[in-house]
Amino acid sequence: MIKRLAAEFIGTFWLVLGGCGSAVLAANFGGDGNPLGIGLLGVSLAFGLTVLTGAYALGHISGGHFNPAVSFGLWAAGRFPARDLAPYIVVQVLGALLAGFILWHIAAGAPGFAVDPNAAGAFASNGFGSHSPGGYSLNAAFLCEIVMTAMFLVVILGATHPKAPAGFAPLAIGLALTLIHLISIPVTNTSVNPARSTGVAVFAGSVAMSQLWLFWIAPIAGGLLGGVIYRWLGEDTGATSR
Amino acid sequence: MIKRLAAEFIGTFWLVLGGCGSAVLAANFGGDGNPLGIGLLGVSLAFGLTVLTGAYALGHISGGHFNPAVSFGLWAAGRFPARDLAPYIVVQVLGALLAGFILWHIAAGAPGFAVDPNAAGAFASNGFGSHSPGGYSLNAAFLCEIVMTAMFLVVILGATHPKAPAGFAPLAIGLALTLIHLISIPVTNTSVNPARSTGVAVFAGSVAMSQLWLFWIAPIAGGLLGGVIYRWLGEDTGATSR
Amino acid sequence: MIKRLAAEFIGTFWLVLGGCGSAVLAANFGGDGNPLGIGLLGVSLAFGLTVLTGAYALGHISGGHFNPAVSFGLWAAGRFPARDLAPYIVVQVLGALLAGFILWHIAAGAPGFAVDPNAAGAFASNGFGSHSPGGYSLNAAFLCEIVMTAMFLVVILGATHPKAPAGFAPLAIGLALTLIHLISIPVTNTSVNPARSTGVAVFAGSVAMSQLWLFWIAPIAGGLLGGVIYRWLGEDTGATSR
Amino acid sequence: MIKRLAAEFIGTFWLVLGGCGSAVLAANFGGDGNPLGIGLLGVSLAFGLTVLTGAYALGHISGGHFNPAVSFGLWAAGRFPARDLAPYIVVQVLGALLAGFILWHIAAGAPGFAVDPNAAGAFASNGFGSHSPGGYSLNAAFLCEIVMTAMFLVVILGATHPKAPAGFAPLAIGLALTLIHLISIPVTNTSVNPARSTGVAVFAGSVAMSQLWLFWIAPIAGGLLGGVIYRWLGEDTGATSR
Repeated sequence: MIKRLAAEFIGTFWLVLGGCGSAVLAANFGGDGNPLGIGLLGVSLAFGLTVLTGAYALGHISGGHFNPAVSFGLWAAGRFPARDLAPYIVVQVLGALLAGFILWHIAAGAPGFAVDPNAAGAFASNGFGSHSPGGYSLNAAFLCEIVMTAMFLVVILGATHPKAPAGFAPLAIGLALTLIHLISIPVTNTSVNPARSTGVAVFAGSVAMSQLWLFWIAPIAGGLLGGVIYRWLGEDTGATSR
Repeated sequence: MIKRLAAEFIGTFWLVLGGCGSAVLAANFGGDGNPLGIGLLGVSLAFGLTVLTGAYALGHISGGHFNPAVSFGLWAAGRFPARDLAPYIVVQVLGALLAGFILWHIAAGAPGFAVDPNAAGAFASNGFGSHSPGGYSLNAAFLCEIVMTAMFLVVILGATHPKAPAGFAPLAIGLALTLIHLISIPVTNTSVNPARSTGVAVFAGSVAMSQLWLFWIAPIAGGLLGGVIYRWLGEDTGATSR
Repeated sequence: MIKRLAAEFIGTFWLVLGGCGSAVLAANFGGDGNPLGIGLLGVSLAFGLTVLTGAYALGHISGGHFNPAVSFGLWAAGRFPARDLAPYIVVQVLGALLAGFILWHIAAGAPGFAVDPNAAGAFASNGFGSHSPGGYSLNAAFLCEIVMTAMFLVVILGATHPKAPAGFAPLAIGLALTLIHLISIPVTNTSVNPARSTGVAVFAGSVAMSQLWLFWIAPIAGGLLGGVIYRWLGEDTGATSR
Repeated sequence: MIKRLAAEFIGTFWLVLGGCGSAVLAANFGGDGNPLGIGLLGVSLAFGLTVLTGAYALGHISGGHFNPAVSFGLWAAGRFPARDLAPYIVVQVLGALLAGFILWHIAAGAPGFAVDPNAAGAFASNGFGSHSPGGYSLNAAFLCEIVMTAMFLVVILGATHPKAPAGFAPLAIGLALTLIHLISIPVTNTSVNPARSTGVAVFAGSVAMSQLWLFWIAPIAGGLLGGVIYRWLGEDTGATSR
């Protein structure tokens, strides 16, 4: 169990360091309007690649959740024991916090580094309303996070199903996270992962902390929804080959 | 059969929500000329990843068509029974419509959201002439949609052929859709999928609806063409290893 | 043999239509300075995806060369019979020409379409000197095309080696072509493929035609070089697992 | 052994030619502010694809290190014999130097080519302080290179573990390098590879040479750290399937 928890710790650390790190350090490189920066596309790719690489490297140890909403969704689908939920979630949050801490220390090495807690997306934090990158309302943010996380779980559960091609699950799951970011960064800066939101909110300041509740409730609700949907969809199907 | 139809419904929902969602929400993030937005490249990637992820997750249930033109093409190639065409297409269109509906509700959460039915590519709709992103004529649009869909079916049928490497088909097929978008978004905003076109045209207004016929006829004609080509090409070949 | 030639014809058609099509139609979408266009990165991805998708779909029929320099390189490595060189190359060029023809008809559907034969990279043609996108000299162009094609063959021969992981060769080969474009579009608009160069030069006008010789000689020389290198490198090795 | 060293030589040559080549030739194509250039995202992709393609092509010969820090990390994890460290590292550096040499000759074919040794990132060199692309301090650079290289080794060791899906390691490892570049190009221009740093520093001038020590010490320290971490993590685990 200690190694499973260590793998979840490292994997979530990698997810936040890589995903949020690319957003903080490289998205807007060179300043506003400079096309050298990696933009929302690069950040989307980075988030997906953290999970793709982490799942190939660590998935055979811990299952590669790296995300409390995923752990809840797998539990809802009957694939993860309830007693492991709490320890998994604790180490996921701890790994995310360490990533936020190290990212802060790297970012602070740049001249003029400062985090404005009132800026939307400050230090890669998630938000809604005035703290949404595109100014999206609380309702839109909630709907978006639920639907995205539910579909994330459908992909996770489907791609790891015994009838799916073996070995491709980390590829499909990582690229699903890239896809989710390609859609929804403007809405909430994309969470679908309470640990990821927590890991940077602590360093992003008061506004991000005050909105953090949504990025626990909506992703977990979506994860449970996706788990329930696929539990029905995937059992005992008369599957056809493509 | 109910689960196969549910899988097609969910997969087409995901295709439209993800592909059109990235176009509506993120392509032009920050306004004209802002390189933070994901642009045509990001939208192309998003469309492909909906199919890549959906096919790994759901392909073993329904075959992973998510597209009436694909269902027709597989039928033309002798790989899909005629009696399943109608139910598949009905749920594909319904899934696409639900995606358009949910996307509308997310998009409407942004300040100043409005859809101009006369704008090319409004709400990610497909079009030609004045409704083509690059102003391409009806003839160019028709030719482009036929050729692209035909080649899409060649890739689908070839990558799922028993002699192709097992398990890689969703990867090849998803990335073929990315490629098709990289080429043809300027021409028609890229359909190659009547359900995708329908799912957003309903919300995009009168111009998109008046041009919708092309995005049923041309992709289906192209799908049939590709199916017939590969039916001849793929049968009983004296295949060589690369 | 007829189906192998048909597969090479279709695959090279797809390579030129997709790669050159993305360059002509989408690279600079919206005009100079507009970040919506897919740029050199999108074109690089498109070229690679034509080969990735074509090789998964058609590689089990013809071997998936789609490129005279690849056919020559495989011959030099002892993996392709000399008697098949001529027919393969003929259909590769014919497929490329058909792609150029169809691309012309799609592109001509845009208002104000015109090809300036004196512009570097006109109609996605290859060139050097004043016809190089970045103004690179003949010597730099020649060196670049030889080295890139040689390394392309090393990747092709290595990834299809019996000791390489099975099934991944189309992925590695396609992405190698993407990589080659990421490096060298500014130098020659990237050929490494005489058929690709010929397929658009015919439509690009007199300058492209007058420089076409280089894009036959340098890629084929590079292909032979890569074939010879890997012939030595790959035979009878005391291979270690990674 | 001679072929293993040749494979490391060619692979490291490819890594530097492709990664640094894309940075020098294509990142800023068209000049400042021109979105046609591939930017930091394209360079990140190029670096990753050199390793992805090189590892599929050559990994079965030499193990596909292409990087002294990787060789050290594999040694620390007990997967590479100490006696092979010196010859591997020598040929890696020689391959990198040849790549720098050829890249210089291609780049010099453009009008007005010149390398300013005082410019941050000159000729794709790595640096800190005034030689960091984003002006990051020595401490931030050191921390970043250590953490990134350590996580690179965790991915390498995990993805090549016998319990990881077979054949996907080059994909995961290559894309891990892409991810690392997406995060850290602004900090140090991203090394995580002493051979890569050396191969271009020689041509980039006095400042790059004077800072080269950091890009030997930090990546190797990080590689050793990652090797030790995974040595503990990966041995004898009670692994669960995802």
